[in-house]
Amino acid sequence: MSEVYAVRRGLLRDRFAAAGHAAALVSRPANVRYLAGGAPPGAVLLLGPGEDVLLCGRAPAGEPARGRPDEQLKLHLLPENDGDPVVVAAGLAGGMDTGSLAVEEHDLTVARHRAMSAVAPRLRLGDLGSTVEQLRLVKDEEEIACLRIAAEITDQALGELLESILVGRTERHLALELERRLVDHGADGPAFATSVGTGHHSGLGRHRPTDRRVEEGDFLSVRLGANYHGYRCEIGRTFVIGTSPADWQIELYDLVFAAQRAGREALVPGAAYRDVDRAARHLLDSAGHSEGLPPSTGHGVGLEIDEDPQLAPEAMGKLDACVPVTVEPGVHLPGRGGVRIDDTLVVRPEADGGPELLTITTKELLAL
Amino acid sequence: MSEVYAVRRGLLRDRFAAAGHAAALVSRPANVRYLAGGAPPGAVLLLGPGEDVLLCGRAPAGEPARGRPDEQLKLHLLPENDGDPVVVAAGLAGGMDTGSLAVEEHDLTVARHRAMSAVAPRLRLGDLGSTVEQLRLVKDEEEIACLRIAAEITDQALGELLESILVGRTERHLALELERRLVDHGADGPAFATSVGTGHHSGLGRHRPTDRRVEEGDFLSVRLGANYHGYRCEIGRTFVIGTSPADWQIELYDLVFAAQRAGREALVPGAAYRDVDRAARHLLDSAGHSEGLPPSTGHGVGLEIDEDPQLAPEAMGKLDACVPVTVEPGVHLPGRGGVRIDDTLVVRPEADGGPELLTITTKELLAL
Repeated sequence: MSEVYAVRRGLLRDRFAAAGHAAALVSRPANVRYLAGGAPPGAVLLLGPGEDVLLCGRAPAGEPARGRPDEQLKLHLLPENDGDPVVVAAGLAGGMDTGSLAVEEHDLTVARHRAMSAVAPRLRLGDLGSTVEQLRLVKDEEEIACLRIAAEITDQALGELLESILVGRTERHLALELERRLVDHGADGPAFATSVGTGHHSGLGRHRPTDRRVEEGDFLSVRLGANYHGYRCEIGRTFVIGTSPADWQIELYDLVFAAQRAGREALVPGAAYRDVDRAARHLLDSAGHSEGLPPSTGHGVGLEIDEDPQLAPEAMGKLDACVPVTVEPGVHLPGRGGVRIDDTLVVRPEADGGPELLTITTKELLAL
Repeated sequence: MSEVYAVRRGLLRDRFAAAGHAAALVSRPANVRYLAGGAPPGAVLLLGPGEDVLLCGRAPAGEPARGRPDEQLKLHLLPENDGDPVVVAAGLAGGMDTGSLAVEEHDLTVARHRAMSAVAPRLRLGDLGSTVEQLRLVKDEEEIACLRIAAEITDQALGELLESILVGRTERHLALELERRLVDHGADGPAFATSVGTGHHSGLGRHRPTDRRVEEGDFLSVRLGANYHGYRCEIGRTFVIGTSPADWQIELYDLVFAAQRAGREALVPGAAYRDVDRAARHLLDSAGHSEGLPPSTGHGVGLEIDEDPQLAPEAMGKLDACVPVTVEPGVHLPGRGGVRIDDTLVVRPEADGGPELLTITTKELLAL
């Protein structure tokens, strides 16, 4: 397994060397994790001309959610709360006479960047940009295996909730119960804050659960996901509460279902991100719901719950095989509620059976 | 209530004007909240020579945990995911011909800072530093009232747990149950990730709960707190499981208890931060526990769970009245476990009865 991280660091080294840098400092937590195998909070990774160094404020505990650092890395432990790892790294790089160090300007604050310059005034600081994020786009089978387990856990937690009585319970309690069930089934934690919206709160992507109680006739939307060994997946479903849905509910559900299916079917290697978005979006648009549509209808998942690619009208780029994404169109009617259906899938070539659906909870409109 | 935010902004305006800046841009979330009353995620606040503008990517929902923006503020809504608020703010400031804009260099990334310069090349960007954090140090009575409620909720959640059977349950389940109880009693959420450590995990400040089960004879340490309307408090207690504690447990508990009391008693207006720390620390030091002591024995709380002041050996500054802090010394013996006792208190003059203890759960050594 250790080999994987060395290979990833090798790929990164090729990229920053090609851009004229002698060394690189990776500070964004998910990027550090990707390249180091695991790291305590606040750790940064220095890829120098010599050996690679993981600088951290405290010793790695090797918890599953954070991983255990690759043994090929040199560990540099700083006294706790004593010295900023990026500043210490700048000092090391300056001492190596590396000349130019690429840093993650989208992650480092101006103050930390200045402190690095102050400690190593002759070191030229360049920008690594989102090079590591680009390496993270396509997942290997071990990463996909973690996502698959995360999705299984998520399906289990959701399935159990559906067997319980929902009427009269608050959004907050349902969200907490879902998170407890995720952990029960082996998640290292929720992948993001669980969203439960009922009645006029339903159909919103990131609704924060309130004390509103589930009532007969409501739409109920849930959105949750497990974090398994650092990998995060996502599922969203909308149900109707009571014996039978109203006509407007069936109509709206069928529309969002069709849009979500169109999005899923557009997931083929080589498809433009924006075309996947359009496949889902144009159905909602043509039905008169262009106002208030979410800015994207899906996004990548992995070590972060919202990573590249974005499936959005302005997005540039094309899907590769082995890229896991969500497809999650939704419609929310202010004051009434709405529907959102959200799956995590892995892009696969048609020869391999097409997109691999990780979140398999039914998408029929269930009346609970 | 609205007046409060205008007064705070007025104080900030005095400070940045004195430093020669015509305008300031506040981006750190807790600082925005402090000055604006409430803001959706990602919002930034521009204090210009003219009216103050809150720039946000989505409309404020007015949830208790995030608050509702002061009505005196102009709201500038950006299309969702379309344009970075700090860049739009730089454009506005540039257009006003403000000359110099102070920004929070400890919060802004290098990439955002560059994008601001690109959009307003003639605007001079200065550093606001931690001016807003300094304003936030001393709390008004309304803020303290929120902390008091947060502490009541926390005491209730902990009290209920103590009445239940603990042996055989895992750290993770106990932590989840505590968080559920916080929400049951009216918290907007946990103030930070609840820590539960049993056996050799006990006595650590930030232990992440595992699947270890509580056993007879264990020390059990818990650390939790409620977020109430944005304000966060903290309590930590250590218990012993079973009929009677061992001698080493009683001895260690008495020592940490004495250190924590000494820290609490040192909380008087005018006391140096480092002297409060020393009051608690020297007892642990003299008992031979100088190795592995935490870098600070307490810290400020408020809109963030860990804010200024730091009660630590190297800290500079003196306590004021109405500053809420934690006092939380602890000792952890590797392989055996340990004790940590943690309260949230408000510094008050002796004439007002001395430090106000917010977290009132007993600190006797309970055998559960």
